[in-house]
Amino acid sequence: MKIAICGYGNLAKGVEAAIANSPDATLAAVVTRRDPATVKTQIKNIPVLPYEKLSELQGEIDCVILCGGSATDLPEMTPALAKSFNVVDSFDTHAKIPQHFEAVNSAAAAGGKLALISAGWDPGLFSVARLYASASLPVGEDYTFWGRGISQGHSDAIRRIAGVVDARQYTVPVPEALDAVRGGETPKLTTAEKHKRECYVVAEEGADKALIEKTIKEMPNYFADYETSVTFITLDELREKHSGMPHGGSVIRNGKTGIELENNHTVEFSLKLDSNPQFTGSVLLAYARAVVRMAERGRSGCVTVFDVAPADLSPLSPEELRAHLL
Amino acid sequence: MKIAICGYGNLAKGVEAAIANSPDATLAAVVTRRDPATVKTQIKNIPVLPYEKLSELQGEIDCVILCGGSATDLPEMTPALAKSFNVVDSFDTHAKIPQHFEAVNSAAAAGGKLALISAGWDPGLFSVARLYASASLPVGEDYTFWGRGISQGHSDAIRRIAGVVDARQYTVPVPEALDAVRGGETPKLTTAEKHKRECYVVAEEGADKALIEKTIKEMPNYFADYETSVTFITLDELREKHSGMPHGGSVIRNGKTGIELENNHTVEFSLKLDSNPQFTGSVLLAYARAVVRMAERGRSGCVTVFDVAPADLSPLSPEELRAHLL
Repeated sequence: MKIAICGYGNLAKGVEAAIANSPDATLAAVVTRRDPATVKTQIKNIPVLPYEKLSELQGEIDCVILCGGSATDLPEMTPALAKSFNVVDSFDTHAKIPQHFEAVNSAAAAGGKLALISAGWDPGLFSVARLYASASLPVGEDYTFWGRGISQGHSDAIRRIAGVVDARQYTVPVPEALDAVRGGETPKLTTAEKHKRECYVVAEEGADKALIEKTIKEMPNYFADYETSVTFITLDELREKHSGMPHGGSVIRNGKTGIELENNHTVEFSLKLDSNPQFTGSVLLAYARAVVRMAERGRSGCVTVFDVAPADLSPLSPEELRAHLL
Repeated sequence: MKIAICGYGNLAKGVEAAIANSPDATLAAVVTRRDPATVKTQIKNIPVLPYEKLSELQGEIDCVILCGGSATDLPEMTPALAKSFNVVDSFDTHAKIPQHFEAVNSAAAAGGKLALISAGWDPGLFSVARLYASASLPVGEDYTFWGRGISQGHSDAIRRIAGVVDARQYTVPVPEALDAVRGGETPKLTTAEKHKRECYVVAEEGADKALIEKTIKEMPNYFADYETSVTFITLDELREKHSGMPHGGSVIRNGKTGIELENNHTVEFSLKLDSNPQFTGSVLLAYARAVVRMAERGRSGCVTVFDVAPADLSPLSPEELRAHLL
């Protein structure tokens, strides 16, 4: 399958690496809104085109993987491109998924193309895990824990504080909460009761560190409700120890079965990722494979990970899957 | 949806309990090869019919869930019933799945019905977990650990030894192996290197316990290759502490991403089940729901868990799923 990547940030580079490791996919082009001359791809000899020229690739691309942001890029780009291409995006603003779905569905259906939105791991594999668990255990409680991992949004929020040179924020599950849920308990827990926030901050020389720490810990929505720790480090330390993009988490469902609901069960799906964008990119490529196959079978409009049969994600044949993975 | 259950052992009772807890399913009948008068269902006022009369239910049943054994029942019953009914089974002899698939596929296709084989948790949800993990991380190693849980086959093998009144065998993951794999290592491990076997045995009065223990530990295939412990207990203790049917396990994949495969990731799906047959029965009912929907859309022949889009497993609408689980 011939893939075009739209955008060239961390996620796009993750998709590119996934294509490099996938025998059934080739990277046909990278499309960017930057000056194409400034983009140096990891795979050699890949055409880099300006965004406006993407339409010239119509008919030559099996699927476009959109690697823009959910705040402003994808709400415009996914519907715009879905008129002419099969597309996959990683739209992750949970609350706005229904409206994004409708916009993309109209566009893709009008063009006879297939679009899959909100792929990745949350939304994505975590969503699928929630669905399998709730379908298997209809009576039960769901829990999602994120981390230990870098939150880009929270790191950015710290960087905007006066006197801060750079910062990384790790979202960390509260061990007692995670252990209780893993042990089968079903407490009512807010997001803040499930997670704490570890901040590593590089301050300008002479900056008021006490004020920076207070500003972080009292920041509404981001930190005020959470157990938050602030550690000041040097720029060298930040680069040496906190330059990666790890993430992960767990989806856990505790449910009951039996005529008297007398038995308890725990289902858990968990991820421990060295590189959030590379893993996410790898998942996007698997869903691009499914989109190409489903479109070949005549499917059009918008779908999500819930609509994709697992077999369509794999390069293996149905016979191989049944013989080796079932 | 109207469900008939074929068979009335532990798994069938698990399916029955799942139906009792599922608002969109009703139990239309239990079909048995025993004398129907001897079967007392958990849900009241359910017709119990002899196996030969199942054909009289044609047109009145949306799906038959087959709860027979994989050794001799299902290889005959699933193809026989798939000619006239949509069916779900839990065929779990991994090595014979391809030939079971072919037999069921021919029968179901001839009758214009849809059959799903090998549902449950392994094969079943564990298979699906292996597929999602390998599609997301094509470069990697898979590990399946079973337990801590009761193995019926190994318990039976001990019971056949002279001087043994009753026995339970727990399959237990070797903690060091599980920890190593969870920690991201990719050792080559045989099944015996991943699991140990704990046996609780009730001996006849005056029986040669040393000989029983030796016979167990030297039994080829079942125990000889494994670290095996044998504990003699009283019948009262066995009934009090070992009468449940717990099971579970973990599917873990450690994989690499990046142009230089420089990053490591761990994906894990795990189950901790108080009642293996009740959880399995609950999964079978979810797949029966999917079979009914797929058959309504015109699908026929044989499918597996790999062919079922997650959305079809849930009683929720696509809109509800996107709004609440994605």
